[in-house]
Amino acid sequence: MALAKSIAMKAFSKSAESFGLKWAFCRGAQAHRIRAFSALMSPPSKAVVYEREGPPDTVTKVVELPPVELKQNDVCVKMLAAPINPSDINRIQGVYPLRPQVPAVGGYEGVGEVYAVGSAVAGLSTGDWVIPSPPSSGTWQTYVVKDQSIWHKINKDSPTEYAATITVNPLTALRMLEDFTTLNSGDSIVQNGATSVVGQCIIQIAKFRGIHSINIIRDRPGSDEAKEKLKKLGADEVFTESQLEVKNVKSLLANLPEPALGFNCVGGNSASLVLKFLRQGGSMVTYGGMSKKPVTVSTSSFIFKDISLKGFWLQKWLSSDKATECRNMIDYLLCLVREGKLKYEMELVPFEKFQIALDKSLGSQGSQPKQVLKF
Amino acid sequence: MALAKSIAMKAFSKSAESFGLKWAFCRGAQAHRIRAFSALMSPPSKAVVYEREGPPDTVTKVVELPPVELKQNDVCVKMLAAPINPSDINRIQGVYPLRPQVPAVGGYEGVGEVYAVGSAVAGLSTGDWVIPSPPSSGTWQTYVVKDQSIWHKINKDSPTEYAATITVNPLTALRMLEDFTTLNSGDSIVQNGATSVVGQCIIQIAKFRGIHSINIIRDRPGSDEAKEKLKKLGADEVFTESQLEVKNVKSLLANLPEPALGFNCVGGNSASLVLKFLRQGGSMVTYGGMSKKPVTVSTSSFIFKDISLKGFWLQKWLSSDKATECRNMIDYLLCLVREGKLKYEMELVPFEKFQIALDKSLGSQGSQPKQVLKF
Repeated sequence: MALAKSIAMKAFSKSAESFGLKWAFCRGAQAHRIRAFSALMSPPSKAVVYEREGPPDTVTKVVELPPVELKQNDVCVKMLAAPINPSDINRIQGVYPLRPQVPAVGGYEGVGEVYAVGSAVAGLSTGDWVIPSPPSSGTWQTYVVKDQSIWHKINKDSPTEYAATITVNPLTALRMLEDFTTLNSGDSIVQNGATSVVGQCIIQIAKFRGIHSINIIRDRPGSDEAKEKLKKLGADEVFTESQLEVKNVKSLLANLPEPALGFNCVGGNSASLVLKFLRQGGSMVTYGGMSKKPVTVSTSSFIFKDISLKGFWLQKWLSSDKATECRNMIDYLLCLVREGKLKYEMELVPFEKFQIALDKSLGSQGSQPKQVLKF
Repeated sequence: MALAKSIAMKAFSKSAESFGLKWAFCRGAQAHRIRAFSALMSPPSKAVVYEREGPPDTVTKVVELPPVELKQNDVCVKMLAAPINPSDINRIQGVYPLRPQVPAVGGYEGVGEVYAVGSAVAGLSTGDWVIPSPPSSGTWQTYVVKDQSIWHKINKDSPTEYAATITVNPLTALRMLEDFTTLNSGDSIVQNGATSVVGQCIIQIAKFRGIHSINIIRDRPGSDEAKEKLKKLGADEVFTESQLEVKNVKSLLANLPEPALGFNCVGGNSASLVLKFLRQGGSMVTYGGMSKKPVTVSTSSFIFKDISLKGFWLQKWLSSDKATECRNMIDYLLCLVREGKLKYEMELVPFEKFQIALDKSLGSQGSQPKQVLKF
């Protein structure tokens, strides 16, 4: 329990004194009167914690954290679902630039139901569905206590697994389509890693904006099925990397215009393929590096083809005073989900099976859909 | 003479009929009256021509081109000096994206004295010093005939060799310092290939704008002298590539701010060194590729360091309706030259020794100062 206590103390800076639940959750007039003697407390929380950074399958464990006190502006949220994103893995591994101090609870986004609110909380009530927005560390646990400013109330008609995953990937897709090049209906974009959740979102958002998408996927068993799935989502063209080993990839574009914007989440040769499709003056935005290989570009591509290369990191975008804009876009994206215009593959896994979900997320079983913990 | 005639016909679209010089250059009232019978003609022109693209030392030859007729808006300029730029070499080799149709006369910039003007020419008179601005093909010859709109009159106090070379390199330096990042006094920039003419110009223009320069040069015999020369021009720091084989190049910055802008004319490892110096959110502009190696960048540099990579090509900038702006900047740069604020190494070579100058420009004798033909 020493670790759990340390987490409770450090990760949430909450008192972990042992008040009974009976006292912890009696609120209202009576609770107010006896505030000096008791305090509003969360239930104990079952959480995925790590005391040090390292291989996620060895440093994480599920422990029960003691109740924490709700200060007057705090909201206690009973988590409903939270995904395992690659960046969550990288945070635990210690290779992500911004990381919570250890010991820490894993996870960065998710959805939950308001369980209890501090005395000064306005605008949120028990039973509301909320997501931490901008996302915030520590979502892999049954009860999260954070300041009311962290929580964004969402429409309860949103499917849980989408609400849990709406920020990190779909918002990345939306921002990347908005922030780099003015795209008009009839334009096209090119991307690699098209089967990723961001890739699937780019296809769909582009589609209903009238923007064509040219998609590159890895060569692998089942690539024909993967192509069909992406085409059903609205992809105009899907190529495996080996199909692009031709002298002039642009001859494959048929009637699509040459793309002014490309997205790269792979690096290496796959990034070079994106660049080959780009038109004169086009830009490629890198937001991932799945192959762990760098991007290599000829100097003449910069000088004579006027190519520009940029990067996108949602966390940087979010840190630049975008909280309100972020919430508006989350509402917009969830609206698209409810209208059936935005969908992507996920696998829901009971929280009890966290280690299995983690294992799949670590890639040891080959390509797997995004794992979403269900509490 | 068949080749020469073909050049005269194709490269200048001028009549090459054999009028005597006596008639060709008698202008004024009498010439006007007899226009139907004679025409204003240039002198014959000794020119470096190439009939086909290929290795410059084998495809070029010096020939005498016959006189050409001056149409009413034409100006005949007696060339004074013209440089051999790397892009001139690339045009002859056939590896430059925009090239004159062959057969062609080499050269792209230079300075000359007005020798004769067509009847409708206004604003230019015999004896004026002019440069083709924006630059224009065919400056490696003793007499150039082009429309008056091509020529920009310059201050005759400008040193010939600077007037001849003021556009391709110094203007590139100036535009690159202006067009990518707002640089304020106290900021710094980093560049490789710092001993190039563009590199020398960047150092000096940066210096008198209060911008610090961090400069990277190749390891070679005489690199200490090269360092001293650059420091005399105003370079704050000069490193050879091998000096930068340290874990943290930024520790070498001493009190200079991390640069927001870098310039790359080399590629390969030298470009990676520029990137290492850049601050978070910085940009590197590629304008050359002397090592013939590509630029290689980790995906995390794009995502987490927010690095962006761009290219600069003066010819593209000039083609975007910048003729007036170009001329204003040429005047500004020549003013800097006359004030002693802008200088760079060149070697003046008599036109008769073109093949020697070409040989030096092709690099077979190791690093050489820019060769400037003197007519």
